[in-house]
Amino acid sequence: MNRQVILRERPTGAVSDATTSFVESPLPTCGDDQALVRVGMLSIDPTIRTWMNDAPGYLAPIAVGEVVRSSGAGVVVESRSPRYHVGDVVFGMTGWQEWVVADAANPFTVLPRGLGLDLATVLNVLGVTGMTAFFGLVDVGVMKSGDVVVVSGAAGATGSVVGQLARARGASKVVGIAGGPQKCAEVVEFYGFDECLDYRETGLSRRLHQACPQGIDVYFDNVGGPVLDAALSNVAMHARVVLCGAISQYNDAGAGIANTSMLIMRRARMEGFIILDYVARFDEARAELATLLARGELAHREHLVRGLENAPLALNLLFSGGNHGKTLVVVDDAVTLS
Amino acid sequence: MNRQVILRERPTGAVSDATTSFVESPLPTCGDDQALVRVGMLSIDPTIRTWMNDAPGYLAPIAVGEVVRSSGAGVVVESRSPRYHVGDVVFGMTGWQEWVVADAANPFTVLPRGLGLDLATVLNVLGVTGMTAFFGLVDVGVMKSGDVVVVSGAAGATGSVVGQLARARGASKVVGIAGGPQKCAEVVEFYGFDECLDYRETGLSRRLHQACPQGIDVYFDNVGGPVLDAALSNVAMHARVVLCGAISQYNDAGAGIANTSMLIMRRARMEGFIILDYVARFDEARAELATLLARGELAHREHLVRGLENAPLALNLLFSGGNHGKTLVVVDDAVTLS
Repeated sequence: MNRQVILRERPTGAVSDATTSFVESPLPTCGDDQALVRVGMLSIDPTIRTWMNDAPGYLAPIAVGEVVRSSGAGVVVESRSPRYHVGDVVFGMTGWQEWVVADAANPFTVLPRGLGLDLATVLNVLGVTGMTAFFGLVDVGVMKSGDVVVVSGAAGATGSVVGQLARARGASKVVGIAGGPQKCAEVVEFYGFDECLDYRETGLSRRLHQACPQGIDVYFDNVGGPVLDAALSNVAMHARVVLCGAISQYNDAGAGIANTSMLIMRRARMEGFIILDYVARFDEARAELATLLARGELAHREHLVRGLENAPLALNLLFSGGNHGKTLVVVDDAVTLS
Repeated sequence: MNRQVILRERPTGAVSDATTSFVESPLPTCGDDQALVRVGMLSIDPTIRTWMNDAPGYLAPIAVGEVVRSSGAGVVVESRSPRYHVGDVVFGMTGWQEWVVADAANPFTVLPRGLGLDLATVLNVLGVTGMTAFFGLVDVGVMKSGDVVVVSGAAGATGSVVGQLARARGASKVVGIAGGPQKCAEVVEFYGFDECLDYRETGLSRRLHQACPQGIDVYFDNVGGPVLDAALSNVAMHARVVLCGAISQYNDAGAGIANTSMLIMRRARMEGFIILDYVARFDEARAELATLLARGELAHREHLVRGLENAPLALNLLFSGGNHGKTLVVVDDAVTLS
């Protein structure tokens, strides 16, 4: 049987017991030009929460009754396709389930072995998370050597890579924003940012001004809402504000942005992106990030949640701040890259 | 004597009788490398209101007791500078006063004669207003042939030029947004937009969707606030949102912007600009706009207010919507280009 987590009803705030159901369905069969994949690990990303809303997005909403959409990795156990070989560890849209079929409609990438990296690291730094950090900073943010770079969600999976990549690319100062003293300490001590500001304390805009008296050249936003507004009030001339996600807004729209006129005063730009648009250029990013990993210049941390049935709980951790590093769900720990 | 309008106290909302004072001071003298200019006409722009606030901006605030800063045109009546000749009609920062000195610290541009254009037309279409429309649409908005272009403040000086320039450059549809049925009728009938939506009616976002079912490629924003928010909810993929001014926000900050996440979903960009940055490229814009004028493809309208003492009233017209075309104050109607 194939155990699956399906969307039962659309959540209005956080995902609750009523949002998803755990169901069993027959094992999928492997047809012509298909491969059967045993799912090993799920990548838990904030965007999954947006797919649960019945709202226009960059992908269609997950239908009620459908398996929850998710990326993840697994191993090919049967193949009738020349693209996949039994034993290949593959990455793609697995969904929250134990088994999935890879084919032309749902293609997977074969992951490289022999890099000495475990599956969790690859799903984190060389997966969607690392790609998002890279193209957001380099391509959308047009980060240049000497820039003052500020990142929100700095203790999070994407934010922690953004800051370290900015440092490696010659930022003059790297400032994180995170929630609570523990996360802020980790951002400085473990991820090596110059400074980290706690958004839960008052006066974020004033404290950003103290940390960046010449203004912010690149602001990488992972949270939206009042933190984005505080950053906008501190942009430097010709600044680039990169909108990666708005995690504070996914469960609850909250207050609006008041400081857009700073974009006029400082001739600055705010631009959103979706990492799916960069798939064709992933190798470029992977090469640079793998080099930093090999040199020991890219600290990373994965937060493993065991058991498919705990995937909804893992998703909620992203919004409660209860996770610690890139959140992954281990569906079957027999699936490894070694 | 030099009659002047000075800033008496900073306004909190609209400019009132207490905001400015009418004073007389001695006629300025013309030193070495200076010219004495008799002011003929003032350009009344929304940005003057922002200079009255004690807030960080792209120029320092006007000091209390100082002549109100403003651009305008005048005629050289005495010159001890090789740059200026007696009789030259010049454009620059005149301030709200009858006489001003042109020198290296306050340089003026000599306006061309013989184009068959009157001073009001030149101050409008070939002045800061036309330059703002051109560089906002072409440079910041990167408008391409076939684009769907939406402009707020469409009956206003800048907006009306933006729409006509978009049409001339091959826009597939040009939609205006303005306040009230009369202005909307003028936008379509006099300025030739395809359609104009009244922001005072409800459901602007829905009506924008009806007018632009494929989404907005370039949105040129002159007003900010809820109109900007409605446009953001309708951006097309890779749209460019040009922030030119936020006239609805100058007197009163109002509600924030809620739809920034559409910039992510649609991989769109929002960017502000200040026309002072483009001074070196004004000739490029003037050539194109003068050609459209000569062909009769650029309708324009000037709203003349007579008398320096009425400059504060003229400024308020911009915010009450009581003006009808580019607002100019006639200080001395003997100053002409003919």
